[in-house]
Amino acid sequence: MYTIRSLGSPTIPSPVPASVFVDDNRRILENPYVVTEGHPSAATPRSLEIAGPRKCIYFEPSKTKAAIVTCGGLSPGINDVIRAVVMELYYGYGVENISGVRYGFQGLIPSYGHPLMDLTPDVVKDFHLAGGSKLGSSRGSQDIGEMVDSLRRLNINLFFCIGGDGTMKAVQLIAGEIERRNLDIAVVGIPKTIDNDLSTIDKTFGFDTAIAEAASVIECAHVESKGAPNGVGLVKIMGRTSGHIAVSAALANNDVNFVLIPESPFDLYGEKGFLAVLEHRLKVSNHAVVIVAEGAGQEHRPPDDAAGRDPSGNIRLFDIGVFLKEEIERYFKEKNVELNLKYIDPSYLIRSVPANASDSIYCMLLGQYAVHAAMAGRTAMVVGLYGGDYVHLPLASVTSRKKVDTEGTLWRATLAGTGQPAEMRNKS
Amino acid sequence: MYTIRSLGSPTIPSPVPASVFVDDNRRILENPYVVTEGHPSAATPRSLEIAGPRKCIYFEPSKTKAAIVTCGGLSPGINDVIRAVVMELYYGYGVENISGVRYGFQGLIPSYGHPLMDLTPDVVKDFHLAGGSKLGSSRGSQDIGEMVDSLRRLNINLFFCIGGDGTMKAVQLIAGEIERRNLDIAVVGIPKTIDNDLSTIDKTFGFDTAIAEAASVIECAHVESKGAPNGVGLVKIMGRTSGHIAVSAALANNDVNFVLIPESPFDLYGEKGFLAVLEHRLKVSNHAVVIVAEGAGQEHRPPDDAAGRDPSGNIRLFDIGVFLKEEIERYFKEKNVELNLKYIDPSYLIRSVPANASDSIYCMLLGQYAVHAAMAGRTAMVVGLYGGDYVHLPLASVTSRKKVDTEGTLWRATLAGTGQPAEMRNKS
Amino acid sequence: MYTIRSLGSPTIPSPVPASVFVDDNRRILENPYVVTEGHPSAATPRSLEIAGPRKCIYFEPSKTKAAIVTCGGLSPGINDVIRAVVMELYYGYGVENISGVRYGFQGLIPSYGHPLMDLTPDVVKDFHLAGGSKLGSSRGSQDIGEMVDSLRRLNINLFFCIGGDGTMKAVQLIAGEIERRNLDIAVVGIPKTIDNDLSTIDKTFGFDTAIAEAASVIECAHVESKGAPNGVGLVKIMGRTSGHIAVSAALANNDVNFVLIPESPFDLYGEKGFLAVLEHRLKVSNHAVVIVAEGAGQEHRPPDDAAGRDPSGNIRLFDIGVFLKEEIERYFKEKNVELNLKYIDPSYLIRSVPANASDSIYCMLLGQYAVHAAMAGRTAMVVGLYGGDYVHLPLASVTSRKKVDTEGTLWRATLAGTGQPAEMRNKS
Amino acid sequence: MYTIRSLGSPTIPSPVPASVFVDDNRRILENPYVVTEGHPSAATPRSLEIAGPRKCIYFEPSKTKAAIVTCGGLSPGINDVIRAVVMELYYGYGVENISGVRYGFQGLIPSYGHPLMDLTPDVVKDFHLAGGSKLGSSRGSQDIGEMVDSLRRLNINLFFCIGGDGTMKAVQLIAGEIERRNLDIAVVGIPKTIDNDLSTIDKTFGFDTAIAEAASVIECAHVESKGAPNGVGLVKIMGRTSGHIAVSAALANNDVNFVLIPESPFDLYGEKGFLAVLEHRLKVSNHAVVIVAEGAGQEHRPPDDAAGRDPSGNIRLFDIGVFLKEEIERYFKEKNVELNLKYIDPSYLIRSVPANASDSIYCMLLGQYAVHAAMAGRTAMVVGLYGGDYVHLPLASVTSRKKVDTEGTLWRATLAGTGQPAEMRNKS
Repeated sequence: MYTIRSLGSPTIPSPVPASVFVDDNRRILENPYVVTEGHPSAATPRSLEIAGPRKCIYFEPSKTKAAIVTCGGLSPGINDVIRAVVMELYYGYGVENISGVRYGFQGLIPSYGHPLMDLTPDVVKDFHLAGGSKLGSSRGSQDIGEMVDSLRRLNINLFFCIGGDGTMKAVQLIAGEIERRNLDIAVVGIPKTIDNDLSTIDKTFGFDTAIAEAASVIECAHVESKGAPNGVGLVKIMGRTSGHIAVSAALANNDVNFVLIPESPFDLYGEKGFLAVLEHRLKVSNHAVVIVAEGAGQEHRPPDDAAGRDPSGNIRLFDIGVFLKEEIERYFKEKNVELNLKYIDPSYLIRSVPANASDSIYCMLLGQYAVHAAMAGRTAMVVGLYGGDYVHLPLASVTSRKKVDTEGTLWRATLAGTGQPAEMRNKS
Repeated sequence: MYTIRSLGSPTIPSPVPASVFVDDNRRILENPYVVTEGHPSAATPRSLEIAGPRKCIYFEPSKTKAAIVTCGGLSPGINDVIRAVVMELYYGYGVENISGVRYGFQGLIPSYGHPLMDLTPDVVKDFHLAGGSKLGSSRGSQDIGEMVDSLRRLNINLFFCIGGDGTMKAVQLIAGEIERRNLDIAVVGIPKTIDNDLSTIDKTFGFDTAIAEAASVIECAHVESKGAPNGVGLVKIMGRTSGHIAVSAALANNDVNFVLIPESPFDLYGEKGFLAVLEHRLKVSNHAVVIVAEGAGQEHRPPDDAAGRDPSGNIRLFDIGVFLKEEIERYFKEKNVELNLKYIDPSYLIRSVPANASDSIYCMLLGQYAVHAAMAGRTAMVVGLYGGDYVHLPLASVTSRKKVDTEGTLWRATLAGTGQPAEMRNKS
Repeated sequence: MYTIRSLGSPTIPSPVPASVFVDDNRRILENPYVVTEGHPSAATPRSLEIAGPRKCIYFEPSKTKAAIVTCGGLSPGINDVIRAVVMELYYGYGVENISGVRYGFQGLIPSYGHPLMDLTPDVVKDFHLAGGSKLGSSRGSQDIGEMVDSLRRLNINLFFCIGGDGTMKAVQLIAGEIERRNLDIAVVGIPKTIDNDLSTIDKTFGFDTAIAEAASVIECAHVESKGAPNGVGLVKIMGRTSGHIAVSAALANNDVNFVLIPESPFDLYGEKGFLAVLEHRLKVSNHAVVIVAEGAGQEHRPPDDAAGRDPSGNIRLFDIGVFLKEEIERYFKEKNVELNLKYIDPSYLIRSVPANASDSIYCMLLGQYAVHAAMAGRTAMVVGLYGGDYVHLPLASVTSRKKVDTEGTLWRATLAGTGQPAEMRNKS
Repeated sequence: MYTIRSLGSPTIPSPVPASVFVDDNRRILENPYVVTEGHPSAATPRSLEIAGPRKCIYFEPSKTKAAIVTCGGLSPGINDVIRAVVMELYYGYGVENISGVRYGFQGLIPSYGHPLMDLTPDVVKDFHLAGGSKLGSSRGSQDIGEMVDSLRRLNINLFFCIGGDGTMKAVQLIAGEIERRNLDIAVVGIPKTIDNDLSTIDKTFGFDTAIAEAASVIECAHVESKGAPNGVGLVKIMGRTSGHIAVSAALANNDVNFVLIPESPFDLYGEKGFLAVLEHRLKVSNHAVVIVAEGAGQEHRPPDDAAGRDPSGNIRLFDIGVFLKEEIERYFKEKNVELNLKYIDPSYLIRSVPANASDSIYCMLLGQYAVHAAMAGRTAMVVGLYGGDYVHLPLASVTSRKKVDTEGTLWRATLAGTGQPAEMRNKS
């Protein structure tokens, strides 16, 4: 049935500048499901648990108490997830005792004095209209023991944690401590990273909204670049260790000429370096749009620039946006060529908007699935989309980072769309 | 690795009103890929060809001519697909001879007199900024022989067809005729149906944009319903044979109280009928938002309403929106209850907007993959997303319709979100 | 100072098809203000009271009770006005006792049983985020005596009425009854009509937002018209007695070919009639966008179409949109010419959105000025923008309707923009 | 007719914290028009010429050549003005010879080598869909004589200049040089300044769009400020010498707590200084939104910060945004109080978007009126809106700057909306 006719045997070498071609012998299974008996044995192929409501649950709804916490940076859709968890608990299972923990893990440490927020359907019903987190968030972890003490003192049975990889590491420790103390608390994470850089999950919530916002910003940069002789629109886009937002936004916009990402280091100077390529582009077309992911070009950090770490323990990035702006301006000034560079750093504008329609739906389903898992007694896990299906994944699986594959589809499409050289390095 | 811890054995029967629960023994394979030798044999599990550029191609680019046609109703993203096909042919393969066929299959019938449109990168570069189809479209098929005559006379080698299931049936006939005549023409389809009702494809392009637009319209209906005593906002939404747009838009909006879809027939009258349930809702909440897919409730077509068919051969639907409006108004008038019904039929407003960011990216990739397939000599196929992967599918596979599964996730989430009864029928 | 240099004497007759040219002897005063002593005498030129806070007020804030009511159809910005009235009363004057009357004048008639809504800064702070009216509205007036009874029983001193000309007529009766009973109640109106058809006020709130929405709808019609051979996008736009929204939306959109408004009657048939002109346009350009104000072409009402009146007492309009759709389709069918007409009736979609930025500011100021006027004891008046200044106007002054001046600037710009004939009549 | 009834004499001193109250004796004339005989004499009140088409014109259309130039920074609507000028010249008067000067005044200096752009209706028809300037712009003036040489060599008769006050000064010199040389060239300006700071014009084009964009940005800052404990959203908004955008955007948004503008200097330190007030606000409400116009607080420029000038001759502003960010962070760090400041500098994002609907209409009319004036032989003037009417104003009249009146309506409304102290100074 799924055989595709060919006109003949393809024998002409492809002119497409694709680093990796598709191998005709590698195919995708029509049916990716498997039926196991009980838990899968070593013999059965490795598989994942499918998310959804179970016929039998572990917690007695009327005696169950739930808490929700949001940690780390904002991402579109957090409020949608909170709303969905509350609605499903309340109307789906009849769990009426639900608390919001304020300002991330701080809210579980009594000395901060943040009171809990009662979450009822009436309280959360319009949460999704606003960006950000109605619970507030904070960075960094807190003392694990103290947090578990609080969960116990508050008689929490279901603990929903919305956060990034740092948060999930803390959640693992919390789940471990709960197991050690033998407490009846299910801990379920909903992974959040606007950068979309989790290797085991198809896409993270908020990403779709973020690229739409980023694409609008790039359009402004495009307009500015065409508004002046030798105009350059330079935009810094979120993405600490990966260029996913930069690449997708560039694909969605179509007017970008250069995308610089952490996965593809570049030289500034020299014949094949970025500045020479940019100069050539300006000569031909009079304007250029340059997108730089915040984690790109870290190899250019000046020796005297001290790194340091932020409260979440991340290494502070060297500000590649401002650096590029200054390098480009200096380069053209030295050549005595008029240049009109407009630098745009949209920063928070991309992440603090409300979720768009498809992220809203995604967040609602993630929240519902998290509830189904927790009510069935699953713990130390996250919910996520995997090959188009919602599944349960162990906490550890979401801490590995997904890079933009510089030999893959998206990067190839990006190179095709921008027309930039595959490599801007003098020796490669 | 992918084992999820459980706090204990779930033994409490779930209170969740889900028709079908997840079976723990059914799991999803971690690795859905398979490596075959040559074409798959009967012994190997059924699998699909992965889309993408091949190392060797079938057509010599410099001698290749391509044509693109768009058929059927508009959908957001058509222009993005056209643009991507042209850009990939031109810059990826060096195919410079590309024509746009005007107004669907009419453009291949000389008697209509529609001239071809030359498609170069410069012509198509801003196509994606506008909704609709820059080539124009038309409904209905034309004489297959005449169309193949035209393709031959024009020396077309690659024929890209953007259209729905009616179009794909015609495309199959065209491909068959080409095979019969033994012509060197690859025919590749990019399936388009705003209704998202193709059973073998994860989602159709434009759907994401359409639900965002529909969700905005529903918000207006919600505002209107709250603006007057016993306000009812009634919205008719696209969806001839399936309620996908209606369901997804309701999930994205969160303020909907009733979603009526073709897959879930309903009684109007009687204790459990829609009108009684609506009356009860108004008593409790003073307002209601009702979404009805255009194909819903066709069982209520009055006996004297002649059906007929449109130029594409589809049965003309009975106008359930206007019918419901009148039935609701009559029902409350007879009961002498004040009612303020605001009927909204957004019709074309949902489909003629430009693609949003995620549809733009999707369309670009679909267009590129269609080109890769055609250049490699594949024919009589469509490109599509299957479980998160882009694949080649036979033309026949996209003519079967996907319904909203009334025992599945989305419908369950819809019932949970709206609070409407699972069935509005007097005997069930 | 304000003399403009001319290169010479203009002597060439202008080719511009403007019905009325500017007379160089008519000029606008640099300073439109006048200082009177006490109230203006017959000798002084007629002038208006300027809105704003007075040094002395009439009502003692701590003893003052206020009520707000919203009547008639929705318009963007109603909630902004409510919010501004509450905020200014509360924070500006210290009036803390503020009630919202539910569902228009119904809320003052005990038999309806609509309870009042307490309005505090905390209640209203997010009102402006939603379209519609948070108080609800209704059409039609109620018994004047009963309403004044209620105001008295509730000890209301300040009564703010947001509504259209029908509402203002009722407000006049209420103010008269209050004067007759010698009650200490100030009645201040904020005029609302999305049609922008008040002759003494520069523009009504919500109009700006409405034309932006209408312009988006027209863009969809444009896309549809270009998507099929001989495509016609036909859009019905609000405007019972005037074409202001239709004209402004057409000017904002730039892709409209015909604007049909009540002020410019047209023939359908005959050599110069609309249908012949449309046919010519399609021959030349293959597509057309037609905007018709809902009050246009009422002269075409079929003899057997009974008019009737709506609850507000307005004559029910004959549905010119559907009529035109059918006439156009019949005309081309008889000529055996393919036609693809897409009819769009956006209806409520244009009026139930939240106010845009400039309407938000306008509504805030209108609300503040209404409060200043009422606190100073002014009554039986409305606030409005007059030549760029906020003023007090008598209630009676806002009931006269402003038409689109078919010899004025906007209509001339519309004819220029659309290219339609100044008159589509066979004998003129 | 325009007498407003009062319930009685207002005698209670107003509690409203308004610096200036309305004087009841100052009123606005109902009729601001005057009819003069020929040009106004000294005896007649000062008045302005009304814009619009004249019965007789000065230039013979078929022999007339026109040019358009855009100078200075971008503003929404420039392309709408260009489009309207071309359309009115072409269709209104039959002037077919129209050129676009590239990159501001550079385009009139041969040594730059920028070719002219032919402007026909077909070229400009979609100009309004994009932000920026399709002609490109540049800062700074060029040699007046050389520019007039070019106008003459190109046989230009109508020269339309879109630009700010710097541009209008250059335009005055050009008009003077033209007069000196006795050339038949009409020079008409369309004033552009996104800051809306022209004293004789009601509002400048693009301002409406800019405040809508700014209000969206502020919403993001609001979300961020509520997303973390002691969150501060700090936004820098355009406005070199006036706070018009900052004030209007704050009014449109409603969630702002502090607006800092050039017109209202403030102390940073001390009991009544900004930092102490901010600290108090955070104690009470846990978050704050601060808007700072780029020209505000220049009195805080550190002594070692060298000013310098930009290519247009404007003094380079000290970066108050970054300065405030650092001062606030230091202040709270020294007090050992957790602070989460999110700094947003939207810069170009506010000005490079396309015009919204009301700006589009405004720009179309400005363009048409500029053409009517020039064709009638008027020169050395600009068109503008004055008290709701379109008029001709001398070039000199638009170079005086309008400040935010700190004793006026808008500032009073801003103080009321934000709740910030009228003065944040220690001794005042």
